[in-house]
Amino acid sequence: MTSTSQPDIDFIYEPVQDQLDMVVDSLRSLAGHAKLSGEDGLLEHAVVSGGKKVRPTVTLLAGALRKGPQDKLVTMATAVELLHIATLIHDDTVDKADTRRGRATISNIWGNDVAVLLGDYVFATSATYVCDTGNLRVVRRFSETIMELAQGELSEYFSTHDWNQSIEEYTQRIYNKTASLFCTAAETGGVLSGAPEEECEALSQYGYNLGMAFQIMDDLLDFTGTEEELGKPVGNDLLQGTVTLPVLLFAEQNPDLPSMKRLIQGSQEPEDLRAVVDLVRVSNVIDESAAVMESYKQKALEALTLVPKHRARESLAALTDYVSHRRS
Amino acid sequence: MTSTSQPDIDFIYEPVQDQLDMVVDSLRSLAGHAKLSGEDGLLEHAVVSGGKKVRPTVTLLAGALRKGPQDKLVTMATAVELLHIATLIHDDTVDKADTRRGRATISNIWGNDVAVLLGDYVFATSATYVCDTGNLRVVRRFSETIMELAQGELSEYFSTHDWNQSIEEYTQRIYNKTASLFCTAAETGGVLSGAPEEECEALSQYGYNLGMAFQIMDDLLDFTGTEEELGKPVGNDLLQGTVTLPVLLFAEQNPDLPSMKRLIQGSQEPEDLRAVVDLVRVSNVIDESAAVMESYKQKALEALTLVPKHRARESLAALTDYVSHRRS
Repeated sequence: MTSTSQPDIDFIYEPVQDQLDMVVDSLRSLAGHAKLSGEDGLLEHAVVSGGKKVRPTVTLLAGALRKGPQDKLVTMATAVELLHIATLIHDDTVDKADTRRGRATISNIWGNDVAVLLGDYVFATSATYVCDTGNLRVVRRFSETIMELAQGELSEYFSTHDWNQSIEEYTQRIYNKTASLFCTAAETGGVLSGAPEEECEALSQYGYNLGMAFQIMDDLLDFTGTEEELGKPVGNDLLQGTVTLPVLLFAEQNPDLPSMKRLIQGSQEPEDLRAVVDLVRVSNVIDESAAVMESYKQKALEALTLVPKHRARESLAALTDYVSHRRS
Repeated sequence: MTSTSQPDIDFIYEPVQDQLDMVVDSLRSLAGHAKLSGEDGLLEHAVVSGGKKVRPTVTLLAGALRKGPQDKLVTMATAVELLHIATLIHDDTVDKADTRRGRATISNIWGNDVAVLLGDYVFATSATYVCDTGNLRVVRRFSETIMELAQGELSEYFSTHDWNQSIEEYTQRIYNKTASLFCTAAETGGVLSGAPEEECEALSQYGYNLGMAFQIMDDLLDFTGTEEELGKPVGNDLLQGTVTLPVLLFAEQNPDLPSMKRLIQGSQEPEDLRAVVDLVRVSNVIDESAAVMESYKQKALEALTLVPKHRARESLAALTDYVSHRRS
């Protein structure tokens, strides 16, 4: 891992703090105004959560590089956050997660049925926000992203316990599942602020690489974090059968290790999974995965050299450090 | 009920049969090309189903009244059908339905988790089809409809067993749940074929009233159909606690009937529900509900007087008879 420390999140927010507050207000007023009868606090619980709001921040920062109309950026950033929230609601339902960020999940409090329908409602709400930008290119990119997200979730589901898959399959899946939305968040910020095409493309590249680094960090934290930091057991992904980069690299290097061999042959025995978790944690694949993450981070920074010098660009650069040094 | 008989569906399809075939081809090729690994036959099972394709037929017929570009109409009609399919997938999951139209549901075969994620995927796919029309007004109307659908489903869920609700609440809910998509199906056909504003508005009114009649017919069939026709027990909605027009009218007229009284006070006892099913079936509320349906049907026909005389208009008119005389 690199030695730079995690930057202060407030330094990152600073150039767009006002707009980010507007995004939060917008989510809060959505929860207050929606006509969902009988659901005391349901929508508020869903959309007024904590979280670092990394994705809408990317949109706002990308948009701040040019002097475009700020209201559309706030609308877009709200849509991006709502889409993220919708996927979390359905993910938590499918994953049977009881808590997220220390709070009970929708499915835990209101049950799976409500979680399915509320997730749909939040998906649809995000789409109407995007329509409010009035920009067809942005709307299309957004709807492609919803499709990629769903495709990523489906393929993750179907590739559970498949330790034999290729790095390419893994890479495609984490693009769909995570990097696609980062990519769209950054690119649409550029499009809506009237940035020239090559700058939108550079922002798209930045978002792609930032998102890939973000997901690999997630994969790493599953092994390097503590149960206290993560709010879930160490090695939880692997125990659930979710195939991540460290495990793929480990499987490649140790196909003949008895526990790994049994997993590859289809065992889902908890003791085999547990044994591999312990081996992965102390193996060199942690550093190797961190190096892969670092290379995505570097590509994100390279992409930023193609956008105008601006205080918001410093925040976008700092975000790559933030993402790759977070502890939860 | 009126005495006119159900018209032949082929007469209705006839002016747009070629485009409807293209919609079916488009669904089939979607199932063939989507990159969903590990899901033998999943997407095909979901999108290549039977069904009368009433909603895409409405779009195509509305669009056929003017000589607009037909390819956009086929794209739009496909989006409309995909959105309908996505809602069915999630509905069947929430309702724990084992079969639909005589076939096993996605949740039944692949489980709830896959059904949630596949529903999301089909939702997103429908949105990308709408984007392909390149018409922002159509895209916006479509995303509002997704929101209304989700709102309708949520409020149906939360109003289960609430026999005390108003006809207004019921009316709003069936608009959200059913008529909104019919409305959008008709209106967008007009918009995409370049119809003038007042004609698009008339088509929207047609779709609204057709959709309301369609849903009330659904409510009626729950009492007037046979188990063989419906593929589910007679009175199934009521037994599940779903509040429909006949039951609301019955509750209004018979609030002091012991079984009804207990239901209104919160009883969910199967014997109370069963007793009310039997009473509703032989009561005058069936005819009263049919009269409400008939008035929506008449308003749909009135709206059609504002669109050009055309063979497709005859089909749209015949569709109001078809919808109000179907047996399943």
